[in-house]
Amino acid sequence: MRLGVVGATGLVGQRFLDILKPVKKDIKELRLFSRSEKSCSFDGQKIKTQVLRPSCFKNLDICFFSAGGQVSKLWAAQAEKEGAIVIDNSSAFRRDLDKLLVVPEINGHLLDYKPQIIANPNCSTIQLVMGLYPLHKAFGLEEVRVVSLQSISGAGKGALDKLKTDSKNILENKSPYETEEMESAFNCVPCIGPILDSDFCEEEDKIIYESKKIMQIPDLKISAFTVRVPSLNSHSEVVWFSLKKTPQSVKEIEEVLSSYVEVNNSRDQACMPHGRQASGKKDVFAGRIHQDKISKNSWVMWLVADNLLKGASLNGLQIAQKLWKIKNR
Amino acid sequence: MRLGVVGATGLVGQRFLDILKPVKKDIKELRLFSRSEKSCSFDGQKIKTQVLRPSCFKNLDICFFSAGGQVSKLWAAQAEKEGAIVIDNSSAFRRDLDKLLVVPEINGHLLDYKPQIIANPNCSTIQLVMGLYPLHKAFGLEEVRVVSLQSISGAGKGALDKLKTDSKNILENKSPYETEEMESAFNCVPCIGPILDSDFCEEEDKIIYESKKIMQIPDLKISAFTVRVPSLNSHSEVVWFSLKKTPQSVKEIEEVLSSYVEVNNSRDQACMPHGRQASGKKDVFAGRIHQDKISKNSWVMWLVADNLLKGASLNGLQIAQKLWKIKNR
Repeated sequence: MRLGVVGATGLVGQRFLDILKPVKKDIKELRLFSRSEKSCSFDGQKIKTQVLRPSCFKNLDICFFSAGGQVSKLWAAQAEKEGAIVIDNSSAFRRDLDKLLVVPEINGHLLDYKPQIIANPNCSTIQLVMGLYPLHKAFGLEEVRVVSLQSISGAGKGALDKLKTDSKNILENKSPYETEEMESAFNCVPCIGPILDSDFCEEEDKIIYESKKIMQIPDLKISAFTVRVPSLNSHSEVVWFSLKKTPQSVKEIEEVLSSYVEVNNSRDQACMPHGRQASGKKDVFAGRIHQDKISKNSWVMWLVADNLLKGASLNGLQIAQKLWKIKNR
Repeated sequence: MRLGVVGATGLVGQRFLDILKPVKKDIKELRLFSRSEKSCSFDGQKIKTQVLRPSCFKNLDICFFSAGGQVSKLWAAQAEKEGAIVIDNSSAFRRDLDKLLVVPEINGHLLDYKPQIIANPNCSTIQLVMGLYPLHKAFGLEEVRVVSLQSISGAGKGALDKLKTDSKNILENKSPYETEEMESAFNCVPCIGPILDSDFCEEEDKIIYESKKIMQIPDLKISAFTVRVPSLNSHSEVVWFSLKKTPQSVKEIEEVLSSYVEVNNSRDQACMPHGRQASGKKDVFAGRIHQDKISKNSWVMWLVADNLLKGASLNGLQIAQKLWKIKNR
């Protein structure tokens, strides 16, 4: 596979390179792109990044884009024209009716149609549908409410660096903790992206829209509230869901979930899934699964995943691998 | 008023002393208690703390306890016997049918019965009912789901100090971020207190039980999920609520709320209520109030408050002041 990575020096791009290492024998060429020419290390080697320009995608089989929606809108069609299949991590194409939005475990079969541009879903959406879809298949989803607690790495390298500096300043009493400013360090920020006409913020709207599209449940009753929390990596989600069919027990739910996510429904806090444990891991983790009190078939669970891995780069690589298999069938 | 403070050197005790300063002219005696004899500063003066022993409460009018449930269970009755009214910040008496659980704005009229031991509610509960109760009065609450994002100060001084040290170690690369251990620094912990037979954790159970008791809605359908987040102070809450009567608009909800909490329903992220802004302030703040999509009369809001102030010490002081007024009527 001749592979391109646009946004190779960003947080997601770097994670993408990390997870390429174990499969490097399948990669005939690795072409990296960034805003300015930089040196990138891949498996001990130095690779110089290129700046995007016409013809730069020629002879690539697949190109992974993770440099924001604007770059994707400007360059994805060009890459397609030059013969590369585009896997786009931005939100540029996710709502296009003629573009696929793929989580391979859920709707990877759609890749059989040999699409040219495939959208990689929003990080919070991916881990959510990994938990919801098996439940939907087994019991039918009735209602879903999710609160996402999203780490700073999801806001990019600049935000992560700022959080670290600001946190240090607070700890060393160089900045006051109490402030009117909406700052992320040691704080929870109650929206991600601008507020839309619907009164939901952009990130909430993505979760709501994308979950329905990926799971193909257009009439799903789903609501979301997204919070930026001052953790470094991994997103956590509290999910209330009610079901159409009644599971026999929480054990049945655990079994159903375990075909898609790593279940650890421990009652011991020390063993529950959490962000620092999920960071660097490929799985989505589920815990705190229990019946709720509000209605008879309503349940709660906690989902955690590395937003840069399954939430972005890993899902993209899985799409690439599946496409490659289909191409060489 | 001759006032005692048990747990004077703890985070809540210290905040209690802070908020006494403006009303110090009303305080004839201030007697402080802690585990061992220490020196405490109050408004520029040094006051020596005492260790609890029989007769130590004599001639006190009111004694505020904030040294954990065990201390309250052991000493509150003694204080009562020695003639002091007890305002207890622990969970020791909150579920006693013959003990009041009071948020003065909501059920302060009950203090007219001249109780001897009054329980101060759980921090997350206080800010929640401050938002919910006006809605209940105006429209009737049907269902409530709350996710609380609770800061480390709620876990006490030891936990706050540990978080600061651990965070510094991570920022200085002295400890790895990725770890299997359930650590709070830069992480979200999906339960507070042990998991009970109901499968809810202790903190969730407190919110569910105490909200019903304070608002006097025994059959309220309410669910809670509590998360410890790595912020230093103030708790935040995402609240889904459905109503019996339909408000005319979100403006009507804002108006109703504003008699109990500080409403800032800005669409601009920079202006929304958040923990670092609420820290050190007496109000409960509400924002992100909007209609939900799940059912026609379902809504969402974001509540923030200083858990050491309105969530603990300030509510206790308000109870004391109300009791004092009743006594001197």
